[in-house]
Formats: sequence, C-alpha cells, structure tokens
Amino acid sequence: MTAADKRLDAYAQLIVEVGVNLEEGQMLDLTAHVEHAPLVRAITEAAYRAGARYVDVLYADAWVRRAKVEHASDDVLGWTPPWLAKRVEAFGDRGAMIRVEGDPAPGLLGDLDGHRVAHSRMRAYTEEELRLKNERLVNWTIVGYPTEGWARTVFGEPDVDRLWDAIAKTVRLDEPDPVEAWRAHVERLRARARALNALELDAVRFQGPGTDLTVGLLSQSRWGGAAEQTVWGRPHVPNVPTEEVFTTPDARRTEGIVRSTRPLAVQGAIVRDLEMRFEGGRASDVRATEGADVVRGQMEFDDGAAMLGEVALVDRSSRVGRTGVTFFSTLYDENATSHIAYGQGLLRGIEGAERVEGISQSAIHTDFMIGGPEIAVDGLARDGRVVPIIREDVWQLSES
Amino acid sequence: MTAADKRLDAYAQLIVEVGVNLEEGQMLDLTAHVEHAPLVRAITEAAYRAGARYVDVLYADAWVRRAKVEHASDDVLGWTPPWLAKRVEAFGDRGAMIRVEGDPAPGLLGDLDGHRVAHSRMRAYTEEELRLKNERLVNWTIVGYPTEGWARTVFGEPDVDRLWDAIAKTVRLDEPDPVEAWRAHVERLRARARALNALELDAVRFQGPGTDLTVGLLSQSRWGGAAEQTVWGRPHVPNVPTEEVFTTPDARRTEGIVRSTRPLAVQGAIVRDLEMRFEGGRASDVRATEGADVVRGQMEFDDGAAMLGEVALVDRSSRVGRTGVTFFSTLYDENATSHIAYGQGLLRGIEGAERVEGISQSAIHTDFMIGGPEIAVDGLARDGRVVPIIREDVWQLSES
Repeated sequence: MTAADKRLDAYAQLIVEVGVNLEEGQMLDLTAHVEHAPLVRAITEAAYRAGARYVDVLYADAWVRRAKVEHASDDVLGWTPPWLAKRVEAFGDRGAMIRVEGDPAPGLLGDLDGHRVAHSRMRAYTEEELRLKNERLVNWTIVGYPTEGWARTVFGEPDVDRLWDAIAKTVRLDEPDPVEAWRAHVERLRARARALNALELDAVRFQGPGTDLTVGLLSQSRWGGAAEQTVWGRPHVPNVPTEEVFTTPDARRTEGIVRSTRPLAVQGAIVRDLEMRFEGGRASDVRATEGADVVRGQMEFDDGAAMLGEVALVDRSSRVGRTGVTFFSTLYDENATSHIAYGQGLLRGIEGAERVEGISQSAIHTDFMIGGPEIAVDGLARDGRVVPIIREDVWQLSES
Repeated sequence: MTAADKRLDAYAQLIVEVGVNLEEGQMLDLTAHVEHAPLVRAITEAAYRAGARYVDVLYADAWVRRAKVEHASDDVLGWTPPWLAKRVEAFGDRGAMIRVEGDPAPGLLGDLDGHRVAHSRMRAYTEEELRLKNERLVNWTIVGYPTEGWARTVFGEPDVDRLWDAIAKTVRLDEPDPVEAWRAHVERLRARARALNALELDAVRFQGPGTDLTVGLLSQSRWGGAAEQTVWGRPHVPNVPTEEVFTTPDARRTEGIVRSTRPLAVQGAIVRDLEMRFEGGRASDVRATEGADVVRGQMEFDDGAAMLGEVALVDRSSRVGRTGVTFFSTLYDENATSHIAYGQGLLRGIEGAERVEGISQSAIHTDFMIGGPEIAVDGLARDGRVVPIIREDVWQLSES
C-alpha cells in the first residue's frame, strides 16, 4: 500500500468514525462528484467495516448539471425526480449522510444565465435534506476532496498533490492517530464554547487596523462548536475540518467599522480588502479593492442580507489558518480565522429559534474573515465586565 | 475542438439518434460507470439537443459493488433500494434507456465468493428493467466505452486509444456521416432477415473444418436484426454495434459436431478451440485446448444450459470481425462472425413465445463464434430445397 493510499484510508476512517460517527446497522447516504471516486471508494470500505448496513452512493456530475441549465425547460430546471425525493426521505429514518465537496470545475456555469443557474438546484431535495439536518434526524458530515479544477483555482495550476497536502494538514492526517487527535480537538472546541456561554455575554468586540466592531448578542444566543447530536443522542462533527466556535447575533445590534483580513471567494469572484460600516445592525458604505460590487449585489438581495447572521471565533491554533492557503471554499476558509457572516442567521446557534426576534432572515449567508494577529477580541458581559477572548491571535479563556 | 472530442460527439449523436432514437420530450435513463463520464457528458448534451425532457444519469462504481459483496449482510446483498425501484418504474411510462458498458476493472471480483457475487445484482431492479424491454415499453440501447481495465484485457496494456480506434470502426465513426451509414446498415440487416424469413427454413447447416452442424428451427422461429420497435411504434437499435441476423432454434433438434473459430471470454476465463457434439439437441463431449472446464460447468448448471438458444448469421462485411480484435465483451464479439449460443432461448426471436414448446429454458446464455471463411452456411427449407446463405464468408441472399 502506498503512502497516498494509507493517507486516503486514514481520511476515510476519520470521516466515518469522527465526522459522521456511523452507527452499526445504519444506512449511509454518500453523495459526491464523479471526480471524488477514490475517496468515495475508501469511505464505502470504511463504512462497511464500521458496520454500515448499506452504502448508497449518489454521484453528481457538474457537466450533466450544466447541460440541464443550458437546455432543460423551466418546469424541469429545479424539479426533484420522485425517485430522488424517495431517496432522501428514506434516510430520515435514523440514516447517516456524508457529502464530499471539492468543485471539479470552478466557473463551469459562469457563461450561463445566472437566474437559471440559481433555479437549477433540486429544491424539494435540498429542502428535505436541510429539514433532516435541522431537526437532527440524521448524523451527517461534509468533507473535502481535491480535484484538478479546485487546485487550479487555489494555486493557479492543477497541483492536486499540493492541495491534498494542505487538506491533510487541516484535518490532522499528519497526527500519529488522527481519530484520537480529533477527539481531543473536538473536546477543546466544546470547552471553548462552554467558557463563552459561562461568560453570559451581551456583545463581542473586534478591534484592530480598520476595525472597531461591536456585535450584539441575544439573551438566547448559545455558543457551539465542532460536534452536534441527533435527536437519539448520536454525536457527529458536521464539518471536517472545523476550528470555530460560533453563535447567532442580534441582527439589530451590530455597530462600527470592519475590514476583512483575508480574501473572500463568493459567487466565482474574489473580493479583496473588503470594508464596511454597521449602524443599527445594517451594513453600508461597502468598499473593496476588488469585487465590492458582488458584495453590494448580495446585500441588496433581500432585507436581511445586509445584517449579520453569525459571529465565529478562531485563533492561531487553527490548522486551516496555519496552512496559509486560501482554499476558495467556505468549508475551509471560514475555519482559518475569526469571521462574521452577513445574511441568514444560524438557527442552531439559538435556543427555540422559531420564537426569537432579532435573527436575520435572508436567502444569503456569506462568511468573511476578520481575525488575525492584530485583532483583539473582547467579550462584553451583561454585568459590564470586559473579558479578553483573543489577544495576538491566542485564545485567552479556559480550554478544558 | 480536438479530433477526439469530435469523435466523441459524433458517437453520442449516433447513440441518441440511431441507438435509442430519442423522441422529443422523453425522459432518458442514462446508466454508466464513473469511468464512462466523458461519454455520459457527450450523450447528455446530445440528448438535450435532441429534445430530451430530462436526462437522469445513474453512475455505478465497481469498487462500491465489490465492498457490498465483501461486507453486506445476505439480506441486503441483492436488495433493490425502494428509490431505485421507483426510478426504473418511472421510465416504464414511455421513457428511453441508454446503458454504457466497458468493464472498468475486469477481474475485480475474482477473489470473492462466487455465490455472493452471483447474488449481488439488484434482482428487483434488473427484472423490472428486463420486463420493460421485453414488453417493449421503452426504447433502449446498449453501447460501449473504452476504459483502461478493458484495454488491458484486450491488448495486454492499458492502451485506451487503440481500443477507442477499434470501437470507432465497429460503430462506423470513420464514415463521413455515421448516422446515415447506420440507417443504410440497419436497412441491410432488416433485408437479410426478410430474405431468411421468406425462405421458410426448417434448419440451418454449418459445414467446414471440424464442423458439420444442423440447427433445427421451429415453425414460429422468426429472423430479426438490428432494429426493434416499442409498443407505440418507435424504432430503436438495442445494440450498437450490431451485425447479426438471429433467430431462436428448436432446442431439441440440433445435430452434429461444431468447432469454434474464435476465442471466447466467459466468466473471466478464456476458452480456445472449443469443440462439442450435439445429439437430440443436447451438447456432449465438450473439449477445448483451454478453458473447457468453464463451459462444462456452465452446461451442467441447469437442464437447458446444454441446448441451443440462439443461432445468428454474420458474414465478412462485419465491422467488428474486420477489426481482427477479440474484445472479450459479448456486445462486440458476438457480432464478429456467425455464432450459436447455448442456454436460454431468445424470446424476441419467436412469435407468441410463451405458448411455444421447444425453446431452451436456462439461467445461462453464452454465445460462441463458429463462422469464418472456411464455413459454408446453408438453409434447409421446409420444401426440401438447400439454399446457400454464406459462402467464403460472403452473404448469398438478397440484401434489399
């Protein structure tokens, strides 16, 4: 077995045992692009070894989707075939889901009608999958796999090996026992969330060059990180990698100015040196040295698009941040450093979210990175204390 | 566009316009292995251009199947997930089906329990698909696409380009207008079948070195070739390539000796210089310089396995035979020269087959090649005439 094969198997084992945390006898929905076949095969083998009852692989094909967007009639464009509706429904009965990401062909849809592209996702399928996740009826995870197209976007050349190396570091495959390293890592992030919740914060404040931003929280805001649990109590790690602790802010109470500290990939464009001002929760005065129009366009999409839906804290211990790579993929980039997201609020960051006012409602949710060595992060507690959370990119609170 | 891309597009167009003969507004079931993705993409594009309402691509993965055979419990092994049952059922409503063949990994299951391999096909899915085809409720075609594994089997090295060249010749992609060339070719095979049916044959006789075989026919035996029709009258070409005219013999009336003229690939083994004797329809005295055991094993499988289920005539005009390549794939090899098959009789070669006695019943159907330059083929008519059909590998009857 080559070193590359060993690494692939270790990755598959990590995804099955830590990511989705497959239970003996579960049905597994494994969704990927055809370009991800080597990882799909390794995951399938690992899943059966872990006691999967049946592994159902559904391969997508970006070129097949392109042909649909280009040629299919309007009524078929976002249609979910009844057999796929039946498929997603079947996994709602205590099934498990793994999705492999890694765009095989960035920009493939770039020359097509944007409206048709936006409407070409299978709505019923996507909504049902989201419901199963939100109602915690499945244990699930999202993971990445390098493709030539993605490597070209990241490095300017199709250097898949280099992207593999970077991904391997972000998911701790360089550790002697990655599964054990992840268990410790998940515990550390959970401890960070516990420490933050114990502070009973009213707001978080970011200060540094070009940034002085106060993000107000709701009394129901809860910090979370790394792991979630199904309704029947099965823990799983929805994103591999993950480095953040996050919560959902009071969309009405963001104030100040902020400057992004890393480039942002959004809708196929790159946004650099993004800056904006918040007043009464709403962003204005959006500027950037590149790509400002894309952000402005998003923020005009609906009423909640220009308000914050997430605030997340990451320090320099992040395996993603330490690679120094911009992955142009949210799964990775949002874990590089502290970030905020404009648009839809994360419902899982709120207790009883459906009854809470002050959560941003939007069809948009875009994360952008605002942390780094020069950014001090403080917690403003309800009792008036100011508590240092991150200084010089180092976490200041308890991690145990 | 490169020459290779042009060839791929011409092939896809041929498959859509001649093979499946897609109707405007049809749903298309396109099934393939992940290794066939380039052809799948070209077919999808061609199908939408030809007016497909929706193209549903289902990718299979030989390694995922291997993992299932190796690990899944007995009750799941041949199970059809309900969503796949719903899928095949949906195409029964005037849908179209294209299946791409070309083994990506010959021998991949070779070290596994043969009984489990045999029982790992999705029975309900396979049977429902067969029913739709037999009841002519879909227009369908089976085509090939070269893979590295297949090329290695054929040439001893993974020379995919060479296999592509051979396949391209068998399907007439070297013609200036392949679609037009196929229309003429289909007409010629239909004319051959008409001429044979007009003779009202009682038997077909093959004579040559090591061969003097008389294959008795039923009064209901009908010669067919190239094209079939759906119940609503849509013609299609089930196999691309196809070079044969064939019928279903009276399984009780094969007499004489026969020697195969080409190697035969069966169950992963190669059979060379196969010889056997027929008495009262039943084969005995099976010999070969290589692989005789495999044939003997098959013939012992059930009662009909040692009787003939098909007789098919092909002359030297065959595009497959002219490549000189043994493809180790029935889709190609049975079209190289005249052949017979032991095992299950072809029901579509018989009028009202369910009520006819004398058709071989078996779970086996293995074609082997018995034609060539030294083999004379005669028709023995019911009125006693002896009519030359093939002499020195040249067709002797009317072709118009």
